[in-house]
Amino acid sequence: MFNVGKVAIIGGGSWATAIAKIVVTHTHHIGWYMRREDRIEDFRRLGHNPAYLASARFDVDEIFFSSDINRIVQAYDTLVYVTPSPYLKNHLKKLKTGLREKFVVTAIKGVVPEENLVCSEYFHQVFDVPYENLACIGGPSHAEEVALERLSYLTVGCKDLEKACAFTDVLTSDFIKTKTSSDVVGIEYSSVLKNVYAIAAGICNGLKYGDNFQAVLMSNAVQEMNRFLTAVYPIERNIYDSVYLGDLLVTGYSNFSRNRTFGTMIGKGYSVKSAQIEMEMIAEGYFGTKCMKEINRHMHVNMPILDAVYNILYERINPQIEIKLLTDSFR
Amino acid sequence: MFNVGKVAIIGGGSWATAIAKIVVTHTHHIGWYMRREDRIEDFRRLGHNPAYLASARFDVDEIFFSSDINRIVQAYDTLVYVTPSPYLKNHLKKLKTGLREKFVVTAIKGVVPEENLVCSEYFHQVFDVPYENLACIGGPSHAEEVALERLSYLTVGCKDLEKACAFTDVLTSDFIKTKTSSDVVGIEYSSVLKNVYAIAAGICNGLKYGDNFQAVLMSNAVQEMNRFLTAVYPIERNIYDSVYLGDLLVTGYSNFSRNRTFGTMIGKGYSVKSAQIEMEMIAEGYFGTKCMKEINRHMHVNMPILDAVYNILYERINPQIEIKLLTDSFR
Repeated sequence: MFNVGKVAIIGGGSWATAIAKIVVTHTHHIGWYMRREDRIEDFRRLGHNPAYLASARFDVDEIFFSSDINRIVQAYDTLVYVTPSPYLKNHLKKLKTGLREKFVVTAIKGVVPEENLVCSEYFHQVFDVPYENLACIGGPSHAEEVALERLSYLTVGCKDLEKACAFTDVLTSDFIKTKTSSDVVGIEYSSVLKNVYAIAAGICNGLKYGDNFQAVLMSNAVQEMNRFLTAVYPIERNIYDSVYLGDLLVTGYSNFSRNRTFGTMIGKGYSVKSAQIEMEMIAEGYFGTKCMKEINRHMHVNMPILDAVYNILYERINPQIEIKLLTDSFR
Repeated sequence: MFNVGKVAIIGGGSWATAIAKIVVTHTHHIGWYMRREDRIEDFRRLGHNPAYLASARFDVDEIFFSSDINRIVQAYDTLVYVTPSPYLKNHLKKLKTGLREKFVVTAIKGVVPEENLVCSEYFHQVFDVPYENLACIGGPSHAEEVALERLSYLTVGCKDLEKACAFTDVLTSDFIKTKTSSDVVGIEYSSVLKNVYAIAAGICNGLKYGDNFQAVLMSNAVQEMNRFLTAVYPIERNIYDSVYLGDLLVTGYSNFSRNRTFGTMIGKGYSVKSAQIEMEMIAEGYFGTKCMKEINRHMHVNMPILDAVYNILYERINPQIEIKLLTDSFR
């Protein structure tokens, strides 16, 4: 029976914090890499992440913190990567240790820029991690609700279902239900695309389209997602499983989603730059849109929503005009 | 080429008012049956429906009102039924005119009680209306947003697609996009079921389940809907078309849905009776739940959400216990 061994979290955001909280409740020890030493010090002093999800309290004696990624990677068996995708390459550049023998779990909802690879493919191609040692965690799950211990469902994807199952053991609890899937790439792509569609939902919201249209947009989005997944990785999958459709809905309908908020500002007429400054952060779907557009240049899947968001964000086409065209393509 | 002829609306609620507004903009004349003479008088005086959707203004010279259903049925070719389903039989009891030669469109989101038939089947079996003269209108569409002229998509279902298409001509506008379908019964059942699922969403909301779970609930609801439709009427259908999935989403996510509000009160601990008194109206899904449960006694489809809502509303099972059991059945 596969044993996940010692688990470490790589990344210090809200989703990283939620996963750390879930895991440490089971294992009573985790390693945790955070880039900023000052954040680690504050965390130790306060007993919670100083920047995100303050309601999740930790026993800091159960955590080995380090801002040195090599110390963490060397000492731990299972590495859960939860950094924003644009920074992943920078973190990994510092790595002097091989990853081949590690069980690598990605909970990153993005594509590695320039490479245009989902994270599991990146770890496989660049770090030689075999597919059976690569897993991903899929939603639907706002970190905030996980911290509040509100019932959430997570899916662990891994080619090796026994390993997926072993990893669910450190996640499952009264308020976390888990299942397994072998569709790693499908789950990763769907978690990138849902951010693009959440931006689209925000743009339409900013343009004063209503709930009737939002429902049509989401219905078309899940079909577009299905077309892409079928083209990129044609296996038998049920697109209305909660890890695909559910994750799309929780993001597309949420007023707390950064991607949706970013879209709303764009729809209201903010430029990309000023929306980003105003939000003090960059919505992951902004990068996801560009990567997915580039990936689809070779795939030629019919993706009118992706195209529209790309045209608005990167080609500076007027959102009003672009969305009007999109509405004509909908069924 | 089929001609819809003179169009009349049967019913005085908000959805009836929205449809009347859409149609009269095209035809510049409609007949309109409302049960209450005082409402008709107020409507004539005010230029809008006194009870619903006051923002939809009408030129009353374009409307022939009557509280005598026989006068309307005799004088008009296309009859759009938009009464609540529990009252349909009572309205039809008064009928002295045959319906066989009429084009009968139902926009009723319910099952005819006792008979346990969707409305098109009821018109066919009891009034001998041939299938090719029976149509239905499907959402997703809040009447309120239609009145505000916010872009909405409607689907007209009819076995005879030429007739469906002819009827879309009196609906389509700048803000109403239409399509056609031959799946009349599927659309009718899905519009009943989505009210049941909106009650379920409300109950979970009342019990303080969050957005993560709501997304899982909706993902499971669309699968349950698909299982039922496939069993009751097995044709090739795309369940993520906006008329199925979209209609479910607009109702299940709406804070304006009476069904969801009713569910929320039940989840918070109100009895069915006190929730109904408090709301001053009965949510259509309350009846829909009972009818669907009875229909499914013969169909034996696996419908855990329907069963849970039925047990809570009709068997007085504690919502907390019933929903907890439901969460265990979800994927």
